[in-house]
Amino acid sequence: MEVTRTLARFVVESEFSQIPDSVKREAVRSLLNWVGCAVGGSRHTTIDRALAAVRPFQGQEQAVLLGRSERTDVLNAALLNGIASHVFDFDDTHLKTIIHPAGPIAAALTALAHHVKMTGPELLHAFILGVEVECRIGNAVYPAHYDIGWHITGTAGVFGAAAAVGKILKLNEQQMIWALGTAGTQSSGFREMFGTMCKPFHPGRAAQNGLLSAFLAQQNFTSSDRVLEAPRGFAHVMSTERNFSEITDNLGKTYEIALNTYKPFACGIVIHPSIDGCAQIRNKYKLKAEDIERIDLKVAPLVLELTGKRTPRTGLESKFSVFHSCAVAIIYGAAGEAEYSDECVADPKVIALRDRVDAVADKSIRDDEVHVQVTLKNGTKHDLHVEHAVGSLEHPMSNEALEAKFRAMAQEILTPAETDRLIGICWNILDQTDAAALNRAAVPKSLAVEAAD
Amino acid sequence: MEVTRTLARFVVESEFSQIPDSVKREAVRSLLNWVGCAVGGSRHTTIDRALAAVRPFQGQEQAVLLGRSERTDVLNAALLNGIASHVFDFDDTHLKTIIHPAGPIAAALTALAHHVKMTGPELLHAFILGVEVECRIGNAVYPAHYDIGWHITGTAGVFGAAAAVGKILKLNEQQMIWALGTAGTQSSGFREMFGTMCKPFHPGRAAQNGLLSAFLAQQNFTSSDRVLEAPRGFAHVMSTERNFSEITDNLGKTYEIALNTYKPFACGIVIHPSIDGCAQIRNKYKLKAEDIERIDLKVAPLVLELTGKRTPRTGLESKFSVFHSCAVAIIYGAAGEAEYSDECVADPKVIALRDRVDAVADKSIRDDEVHVQVTLKNGTKHDLHVEHAVGSLEHPMSNEALEAKFRAMAQEILTPAETDRLIGICWNILDQTDAAALNRAAVPKSLAVEAAD
Repeated sequence: MEVTRTLARFVVESEFSQIPDSVKREAVRSLLNWVGCAVGGSRHTTIDRALAAVRPFQGQEQAVLLGRSERTDVLNAALLNGIASHVFDFDDTHLKTIIHPAGPIAAALTALAHHVKMTGPELLHAFILGVEVECRIGNAVYPAHYDIGWHITGTAGVFGAAAAVGKILKLNEQQMIWALGTAGTQSSGFREMFGTMCKPFHPGRAAQNGLLSAFLAQQNFTSSDRVLEAPRGFAHVMSTERNFSEITDNLGKTYEIALNTYKPFACGIVIHPSIDGCAQIRNKYKLKAEDIERIDLKVAPLVLELTGKRTPRTGLESKFSVFHSCAVAIIYGAAGEAEYSDECVADPKVIALRDRVDAVADKSIRDDEVHVQVTLKNGTKHDLHVEHAVGSLEHPMSNEALEAKFRAMAQEILTPAETDRLIGICWNILDQTDAAALNRAAVPKSLAVEAAD
Repeated sequence: MEVTRTLARFVVESEFSQIPDSVKREAVRSLLNWVGCAVGGSRHTTIDRALAAVRPFQGQEQAVLLGRSERTDVLNAALLNGIASHVFDFDDTHLKTIIHPAGPIAAALTALAHHVKMTGPELLHAFILGVEVECRIGNAVYPAHYDIGWHITGTAGVFGAAAAVGKILKLNEQQMIWALGTAGTQSSGFREMFGTMCKPFHPGRAAQNGLLSAFLAQQNFTSSDRVLEAPRGFAHVMSTERNFSEITDNLGKTYEIALNTYKPFACGIVIHPSIDGCAQIRNKYKLKAEDIERIDLKVAPLVLELTGKRTPRTGLESKFSVFHSCAVAIIYGAAGEAEYSDECVADPKVIALRDRVDAVADKSIRDDEVHVQVTLKNGTKHDLHVEHAVGSLEHPMSNEALEAKFRAMAQEILTPAETDRLIGICWNILDQTDAAALNRAAVPKSLAVEAAD
């Protein structure tokens, strides 16, 4: 079975008209969510340091950095936008593999749009195919590959980025195979890096390496024809188990991006049901913190194992506190980056409520489920059972919720009018004759550089 | 045991004066051999294609490409010079791990010399340390890591390049640890790529990724502190076995570069004893092809397994023919790239002699050993037993032989005077106040660009 060739041929032969509208809609939602994350992360120290490192060697100022004033070459733009989009760990999740699918693919394609003219539909088509390649390769080796210690977003993402870029470059079948080969032989990224700047570096570098692989293949830079399936290729070298039918079955019939999910809250996914429940009760009964006597949660055991931190001292620590998370859900009705800041953690009002949250683990509760009981000072009790947290496949974030998340991410970077315009371009990406318009709209006017594309 | 920290501290604290002269001498030989290989490979199609791919995105023309007229930025120069140096698979070998040590390190450092002023001794010091890091990490995981399918020159080389560059950048201990971490999380390259352009891509990319890692660390871009030893770090994720004492024992007491070897012939190492034997007999008796009735070899079994091709049709195939190799050894007294060209393979004189070479496998013969018997048409028989082929640790290439190899590699690229000058700079690298002089001398005058460094 020619696994690599089969996958490459599918990408080369795919036509946009064959892709169901529901898949395209989910792709648009994924793209919007990704752009919001990339803008939101764009001013993080991680980006400043990476940019300072590559600046002396960068090429012409071809491509914008989303949310920033600087421009750089296409390859470095992919790196930096890719890092920015994952710096808050707030991007999308393909739950079957824990891949964050959009990062490597969207970072590569949006940067490429400054070098190769592409329409919005062309970008979206390549994006869908890139995610398809990435997630199918992930499906073939997950969980063994992940359990070994590979950060699958980087290791699988580089293939997806190469395929997506290769589609835009109109590579032929042999070139597409080489692009996948050159991408695969750069596949890398350890889970050991979690908690350091190298974690978001992985999707950024996967985007950049995927771009390079496709550009090399365009020049007939040769590679193996069997990078996925060969005894010394990806699936054998980087995994102890593999199932190639995950790559080759039902190509063009199912699309992995249809299974994409988005994080409504800027913390580990296990706390999401509790936040969702608290926010729902708050909104329904218009509760204020001072009305509340106590909050009791019945949660899955993993919640206390991973996020049982009683007294977080920093913003980062507070992401591992279900108690802090419920307190901000009640007080602000939100749990975005702002609610996980050092300031918010130190806020006496938040601390006071946090200390009145209690949680017990119950093995009968699933990971995306919670029972919340809020007891008011006047003795009233409000009970809520969240069966599937918002953001799960069963209860996806609405378009409105995605927009609200986007606005919260962009608020200190773009003006409200700029944010509206950028959101509009994302929703209407299929009407864009020049996909790079998206990037340009992501640069704050006050910072916009007049350089030509 | 803090493996990564111990290694990083050694690199940071190392002083050139502590390194034995014999080690420095071998480092100079390694550098000379590498420069010859990089110049010799510089016009290969592989470089043309890679350059065409990166050119639209390259930065300022900071650094030269050895043997070529183009300049590019430091990062891309490291990539391209690194590819060139391995394109003929004619560079050095650390026999204990089959790492080709110089490529990733020298490609990174020579490119860096256009960005950071360094003296010849500083370059050589960093080169020795980079090879040390690379080969010690290789020692710790070889052979299990290689057997899985990793191309160890790339996977270990990236650490060495980062360490060498970090030494020149004067990184502190924490930064050096981060440089190793960021390098490690990019460690990659499958043996599946052997026989394609991606094989030489590996040392080139390792050089470039090592450079980037050190530049990032200089900006305090964080990484794991335990990339080598952590349960989800390099030695566990990328190998089934590991021995950390290979990394931490006797640091500063032994130097791996002292164990470096150089290929006298441009083919797989198993044929080297046979070529050596034939060339010795030829030279001793001043033999001509037309005098010879037959050549009989008694060889190690691996020779016929790997290089038993009776009738090679292309230059590449002829590298896997012990018969062709012995024929050219007799006719030309050499087996360089020129003797493995398509033209040479098709030469009737070569074919006629090739067909009179016979070889039998004998399990009692070691891999670096051969018995050669040449029977002349006049009935005379010449017998020779090669105990250790030239280029082995027991019988290293002489400085004169290294120079001759260099000249053969450079002959279609540099004038004899230019070659003399470049060889002189390599031998006298310790006298250079500006290490970049080496690079500049590797650009043919007829092509030299007047751009400032």
